[in-house]
Amino acid sequence: MTNTDNQALKWTRKHLIGLEDLSKDEILHILRTAKGMQAISNRSIRKAPALRGRVAVLLFFEPSTRTRTSFQLAAERLSADTMEFTEKMSATRKGETLIDTAKNIEAMGVDIMIVRHAAPGSSQLIANNVDCCVVNAGDGQHEHPTQALLDIFTMQEQFGEDLTGIKVAFIGDISHSRVARSDIFGLIKLGAEVHLIGPRTLLPGGLKNYHPNVHLHHHLDEILPELDVINLLRIQLERQGALNFPSIREYNKLYGIDERRMKLAKPDVMIMHPGPMNREVEIASSVADGAHSVILKQVTNGLAVRMAVLSLVMSAEDSTIASQM
Amino acid sequence: MTNTDNQALKWTRKHLIGLEDLSKDEILHILRTAKGMQAISNRSIRKAPALRGRVAVLLFFEPSTRTRTSFQLAAERLSADTMEFTEKMSATRKGETLIDTAKNIEAMGVDIMIVRHAAPGSSQLIANNVDCCVVNAGDGQHEHPTQALLDIFTMQEQFGEDLTGIKVAFIGDISHSRVARSDIFGLIKLGAEVHLIGPRTLLPGGLKNYHPNVHLHHHLDEILPELDVINLLRIQLERQGALNFPSIREYNKLYGIDERRMKLAKPDVMIMHPGPMNREVEIASSVADGAHSVILKQVTNGLAVRMAVLSLVMSAEDSTIASQM
Amino acid sequence: MTNTDNQALKWTRKHLIGLEDLSKDEILHILRTAKGMQAISNRSIRKAPALRGRVAVLLFFEPSTRTRTSFQLAAERLSADTMEFTEKMSATRKGETLIDTAKNIEAMGVDIMIVRHAAPGSSQLIANNVDCCVVNAGDGQHEHPTQALLDIFTMQEQFGEDLTGIKVAFIGDISHSRVARSDIFGLIKLGAEVHLIGPRTLLPGGLKNYHPNVHLHHHLDEILPELDVINLLRIQLERQGALNFPSIREYNKLYGIDERRMKLAKPDVMIMHPGPMNREVEIASSVADGAHSVILKQVTNGLAVRMAVLSLVMSAEDSTIASQM
Repeated sequence: MTNTDNQALKWTRKHLIGLEDLSKDEILHILRTAKGMQAISNRSIRKAPALRGRVAVLLFFEPSTRTRTSFQLAAERLSADTMEFTEKMSATRKGETLIDTAKNIEAMGVDIMIVRHAAPGSSQLIANNVDCCVVNAGDGQHEHPTQALLDIFTMQEQFGEDLTGIKVAFIGDISHSRVARSDIFGLIKLGAEVHLIGPRTLLPGGLKNYHPNVHLHHHLDEILPELDVINLLRIQLERQGALNFPSIREYNKLYGIDERRMKLAKPDVMIMHPGPMNREVEIASSVADGAHSVILKQVTNGLAVRMAVLSLVMSAEDSTIASQM
Repeated sequence: MTNTDNQALKWTRKHLIGLEDLSKDEILHILRTAKGMQAISNRSIRKAPALRGRVAVLLFFEPSTRTRTSFQLAAERLSADTMEFTEKMSATRKGETLIDTAKNIEAMGVDIMIVRHAAPGSSQLIANNVDCCVVNAGDGQHEHPTQALLDIFTMQEQFGEDLTGIKVAFIGDISHSRVARSDIFGLIKLGAEVHLIGPRTLLPGGLKNYHPNVHLHHHLDEILPELDVINLLRIQLERQGALNFPSIREYNKLYGIDERRMKLAKPDVMIMHPGPMNREVEIASSVADGAHSVILKQVTNGLAVRMAVLSLVMSAEDSTIASQM
Repeated sequence: MTNTDNQALKWTRKHLIGLEDLSKDEILHILRTAKGMQAISNRSIRKAPALRGRVAVLLFFEPSTRTRTSFQLAAERLSADTMEFTEKMSATRKGETLIDTAKNIEAMGVDIMIVRHAAPGSSQLIANNVDCCVVNAGDGQHEHPTQALLDIFTMQEQFGEDLTGIKVAFIGDISHSRVARSDIFGLIKLGAEVHLIGPRTLLPGGLKNYHPNVHLHHHLDEILPELDVINLLRIQLERQGALNFPSIREYNKLYGIDERRMKLAKPDVMIMHPGPMNREVEIASSVADGAHSVILKQVTNGLAVRMAVLSLVMSAEDSTIASQM
């Protein structure tokens, strides 16, 4: 891949709502742009002027620390001004509609809205009603595209850009995971084989015949030796009592990744987790901190991926952006 | 109006507490400065260096989203650093006096304090005790000068700088509205005719003989055909039970602006609302989104007006500011 | 002291955990660097590029206004980007360990972590587990080094760099004060004489034979005439009921500094308070606002001291920093 390849595709989307909408070429274009963004983080002055004078608003109706912070740092590294709107501050509490809230914020001269909201489709709804750029930072159980992009980016660092035939597993509550959904959409477009693993109650029946490259499993140990990548989803201990499985101990026994299971896995298996981790529940500490874990690398790569997304959506709005990177 | 007119008045106030204190010339000077600020927002790099190295603190003892954000964006567009102090963070909770809190913040090297507080007179109190600039962002039911300035600025865009004889109505809870108060002070100085409309319980008796250009009405439809501007105030639905009128349905019937009433109004009537709106209560959706509505324009103009105010108060402090704009 | 002296000591610590760890020369080096930082705050453009492109995260697990704000302003004055993590946002709430939270934040490309936490040793724990710089902004009842440094800096402004033999008192709840602890560590290294004054219940027995220059007193008036500096600690009225003395009135009578006691004190006695003050409890208003009070000067000096600390720890990481100041 050369720089010429990268510029061959002219980016035209001013919103990023989900990976389901994107073509394989578009996904690869974002990931290649992210590769370039990594370089900025290695400079002695880690700033690029691409978004100078631009305003990125973090419109977060659901609490979030790491996604919000990662987007904010990405925007600041590109010299944008950033502004937070959290749920409790929002006038939606005073009966204002989501669209009115978004239009009001836009009217203040905002260029990019980064939106997290509990309702699936909320980012698209806002995108349909504003002229500025909209980036989905998680909409209910629908999509969380930048998390999936950073996951794929991290896999490419080990397996190369072409993920054809790479076997990527997701273990845990797939049914309620927007991360898994976005990952699945992206990975099958890039030719990877997706394996979804968990108890019946946590696997979406609808995915059974979704795509020939998507496979469902209830028994981890049967498929474990074939996997190239294991993505552990977070068990939401704070929802205890409403968990869809008998007990945490049972979950750990059936699906937790520990030293014993690591011996069954491929010698170069990659262990991923979107965080925050429950140590000794879905993942043993020795695995989380072990040589196969790329969990902190995922966090670092999130910054490069989000810098890429922010600069690309703005470049669709304003052709002068691309030349400033 | 030429640039020369604009510079003829040398700005000397380092605080903006309310429009009651300002002369007609001072109000016009702010509005002309705001006109110049609009140009910055249309540049490709939307930044001016006027307040670079300056610190603006948002000292908000009452929750607010749009006013706070608008001030913050205005300050950042002028390259200031901004810092938030919200009520729940403040040491006033630990028994510290408001003056001590303000003096402490000032001692950290702050240049401008933008203050919102439930107590009328609180901004003036702080201004009396600090050396830095103070801008009132709403003090109880007293004043909210920048909201009134952006309202007037928006009227000028349609009716020209001279508002003499323009009939401007405010409908709703005038008694408790600092926005209406500041607007009234400003508008009568500029020669406009002010019409306050609402049920007896929401109109301040004290304004009856306040000024020959201020008129009170209980029946909207009688005066409606004469109005050039209709400013709808927000009905605070969240205070239901403590509303000063029988029911929301009754209020809507007597004072809500809908398609039927729009037919009684002047063909070029301007519809304003400080937001957040209650659609189908004080305003029908078709009116809010219709051709007469300047509601989002008000939000956009708020940025220019606040940029003007921040740079003017700082220029009174430091004569080098004006030359940097 | 010349600039050459200052550069003679090459700063090597990338963390600042407490004054107990520092040598006298290191403490003096920070204070001399702070002296240089004061100059930046007096420039017309009050910015230095030392930390441009660097990210400082304020990781505050305990609420704080002035310390957090002071650090944030200090970082911004050095052109760093800043980011807040408060307790309620943190994933530690979701069961994540403190170390995992810190490592995650670091993985986002953070350069300096400024940490406040209720647990003594928490800053050191984080420092042991991350590669970025860590500055302790208060860890339980252990240390609050930058507050002590700004206290000492303020004393030096009156008494000169050499504090040998200067008698510095702390009055109040010494037992629970990390400020007093850090001040004691610093002051005795610089040769000052420390007098701890309060009722038996508020004085730490362990300090009785701690150092020949540390003295405990229960009766203020006996030692009062000898003191050069009186540092009043805050009585935490919000913990009423759990106060370790009979009543506020009694405390005020025995230990409050008022006009009567000021007449017993040296004519050039210096009155300090870390804030927020309880007027008429530990300090009379006339004293707080009087000629001997340096309370607001302490706040202002906090900025210079924190700028010095942030730039020094970063310079230990990256030798290009020092040359940019």
